Amino acid sequence: MDKSCINVGILGWGTVGTGVSKILINQNALISKNSGVELSLEKVVKRSLPATREGIELPPNCLTSDPNQVVENPDIDIVVELIGGVSEAHSLITRAIENGKHVVTANKALLAEHGGELFQLAQKHQVSLNFEASTAGGIPIIKTLQESFTANQIESLYGIVNGTCNYILTEMNLHGVDFSDVLTEAQEKGYAEADPTLDVEGIDAAQKLSLLIALAYGVNLSIDKFHVEGITDISQKEIQYARELGYVVKLLAIAKLTDDNRVEARVHPTLVPERSLLANVGGAYNAVCVIGSAVGPTLFYGQGAGEMPTASAVVADIIDAAKSVKNGIYPEISHAWFPDVPVEVTVCPIDDIYTRYYLRFVVIDRPGVLAKIGSILGDNDISIASVIQKEPHDTETVSLMMLTHKALEKNMKTALNEILKLEVVKGGAKLIRIEEEVDF
Amino acid sequence: MDKSCINVGILGWGTVGTGVSKILINQNALISKNSGVELSLEKVVKRSLPATREGIELPPNCLTSDPNQVVENPDIDIVVELIGGVSEAHSLITRAIENGKHVVTANKALLAEHGGELFQLAQKHQVSLNFEASTAGGIPIIKTLQESFTANQIESLYGIVNGTCNYILTEMNLHGVDFSDVLTEAQEKGYAEADPTLDVEGIDAAQKLSLLIALAYGVNLSIDKFHVEGITDISQKEIQYARELGYVVKLLAIAKLTDDNRVEARVHPTLVPERSLLANVGGAYNAVCVIGSAVGPTLFYGQGAGEMPTASAVVADIIDAAKSVKNGIYPEISHAWFPDVPVEVTVCPIDDIYTRYYLRFVVIDRPGVLAKIGSILGDNDISIASVIQKEPHDTETVSLMMLTHKALEKNMKTALNEILKLEVVKGGAKLIRIEEEVDF
Repeated sequence: MDKSCINVGILGWGTVGTGVSKILINQNALISKNSGVELSLEKVVKRSLPATREGIELPPNCLTSDPNQVVENPDIDIVVELIGGVSEAHSLITRAIENGKHVVTANKALLAEHGGELFQLAQKHQVSLNFEASTAGGIPIIKTLQESFTANQIESLYGIVNGTCNYILTEMNLHGVDFSDVLTEAQEKGYAEADPTLDVEGIDAAQKLSLLIALAYGVNLSIDKFHVEGITDISQKEIQYARELGYVVKLLAIAKLTDDNRVEARVHPTLVPERSLLANVGGAYNAVCVIGSAVGPTLFYGQGAGEMPTASAVVADIIDAAKSVKNGIYPEISHAWFPDVPVEVTVCPIDDIYTRYYLRFVVIDRPGVLAKIGSILGDNDISIASVIQKEPHDTETVSLMMLTHKALEKNMKTALNEILKLEVVKGGAKLIRIEEEVDF
Repeated sequence: MDKSCINVGILGWGTVGTGVSKILINQNALISKNSGVELSLEKVVKRSLPATREGIELPPNCLTSDPNQVVENPDIDIVVELIGGVSEAHSLITRAIENGKHVVTANKALLAEHGGELFQLAQKHQVSLNFEASTAGGIPIIKTLQESFTANQIESLYGIVNGTCNYILTEMNLHGVDFSDVLTEAQEKGYAEADPTLDVEGIDAAQKLSLLIALAYGVNLSIDKFHVEGITDISQKEIQYARELGYVVKLLAIAKLTDDNRVEARVHPTLVPERSLLANVGGAYNAVCVIGSAVGPTLFYGQGAGEMPTASAVVADIIDAAKSVKNGIYPEISHAWFPDVPVEVTVCPIDDIYTRYYLRFVVIDRPGVLAKIGSILGDNDISIASVIQKEPHDTETVSLMMLTHKALEKNMKTALNEILKLEVVKGGAKLIRIEEEVDF
């Protein structure tokens, strides 16, 4: 089969859908020149009509409110799902695949939840299901893991994959403001949703991590097995003290292969060395570091969201699918989503990880306090690397910060429990994990 | 055609060839699991035998000194050229393509010189000619430009693509040592060749830039049309003064699309803002910034050379070629190398570029000197942004540094000619171009 023109239908004409329609119509000649495929945008589905968008004029009869004009339309070769949410997207993509259409989606929540089922269906019907835009927006990290780093065992992966959190932490770091103030400002500027829970609690980052892990380790893990902490507990104090100690606080999505073939899968605020590239990824930008057995340390940086960056990734996926249509082939789908492939890796529970820690305690300013805390840590095989004591909070208490050497998380929990029972310790401890491996 | 096992032959068993053989043999199961293709390393050609390599044992009868056992061997599907140099590599690749074999090469010098002819031959014989490892080693920048940024007009591209130069400049910056001392040390450590000309004069970077431009702008430009300056004139003074002014000196390969559809193509030492990601790419590492019309600013970072990083890219290319063999298709080859495609872009001569400049003059310490220089600059439409005068060199002369606003290079040349004729100016001027656009 050699089709000269490949027909595309878009489900959803929101921000990203608008960007994709702009590129497909306004940059049609550029795409043809660069890729050798001819694309035609046949249908765009928007629930409530009429609708117009600045900077783009759709052809007559292109806009419709009926998704069946895309998923049930025999003329459409590629379906682009950009409505978001899980339930409706799930049923529309299912129909499209059953009708033999290639599918492109940016829907990480859908894939994190129903990836296994949908990829198996795509293989059964020999169509591609592309999802570059689901993780880190315009950064081609999906293709890099699927195609460029195939000869590597992925040793570890560290991602700033949530732009909202990175924007908030960057502002807190630059301007000395508190989390809640930045969040309000971010909501006003459109960098954060009205309900920011999925972002600031780390859930969005965990969904993206599950996709990265599927590609890096060939295993489809449910995010409820991950350790997920958001940034809502990060205070200005932690930002400042971290900086004094030579670190920057970032929300990282982390995957690591352990020596016994388990995968650490965790999302949490992390101290990274302030001179590292990762620490200098500012604002709403995303970056993913991948350390591969052959390629060594790498970093990929770009915009993780927004109309045109995300559309750039979606259109790249459309072009890949169009080449499959044109050549009458369909690409291999990662075995991660197939239950008949023996699973070689399991999640390493957070208790079993081994890392460095930043700790802050509010303690009574009295001789012997450090000795008491140090003794409990020592009893639990935790060795202190450095200590800073800060000016009194009030007349009685001071902040005591320490960085530890690498220790087992389970031991840290035990030690913290004991330390918090000490009469001299007032208020809860703050704990932030440290990653030194990204010091490049 | 569906071949179950794809046979590979390697020409050249040096550093990279050894890395590729290690991955193909030791990581064979990983590749098969990750990509779905079965690869078999059938032949490795090394001119002088016997030879052994640590960490790898080749199968019996695999090693040979006869390249015809690869390029004329009907059992070989994919030929990997890693002998380097131009003449022999050229004739072997030509034979391989004529015999219908897919080719993978890391040879930027060959492609910069004979790319047009070889890519046309590959198209005629419907085979792929992959070259990811030719530019920026393990960083998948070729695939990103060819596949991921297809929907973008590439607005500009800035690459640290020569590890030797970046190592030397990093050491000069960190340790206050002079160029020649670092070069000697780099040669001892194996970071620089015995004859470092191709690296330190910017020629290697220019060859890589020509490949990046071919992909970004669809035009095959000879590097003799580029403006190429190396780093041999960069003194410790420039490094120090740049830092005082908030900049770091990097050797950048730069391509930019101008408003009148010409391409700036230049390799030269460049001041980049010290807080930018690019400024913080240290040691022998490479990085490429691409600014696309849709995706916006991006950066890709990793090792640009070395046994395993380069082998990682070569093997990714082998796997792509193997998928073509397996599926009986061959990928589109960029139109850049085809003379029948109308060329839409030409090189913008260096005289026509418009940029900011760092200037340093050694002048007699006498009133009115700055006024004289300023007046000549002003007469040539060059506006001074800031000036610093440094302590006397000797009893008579001082260093006078200035940063200009954006100015036309032709005007700058005229102005410099006049300034150097001034009686108060002693010794040649230093000029380094500044790029502010990479300030992310």
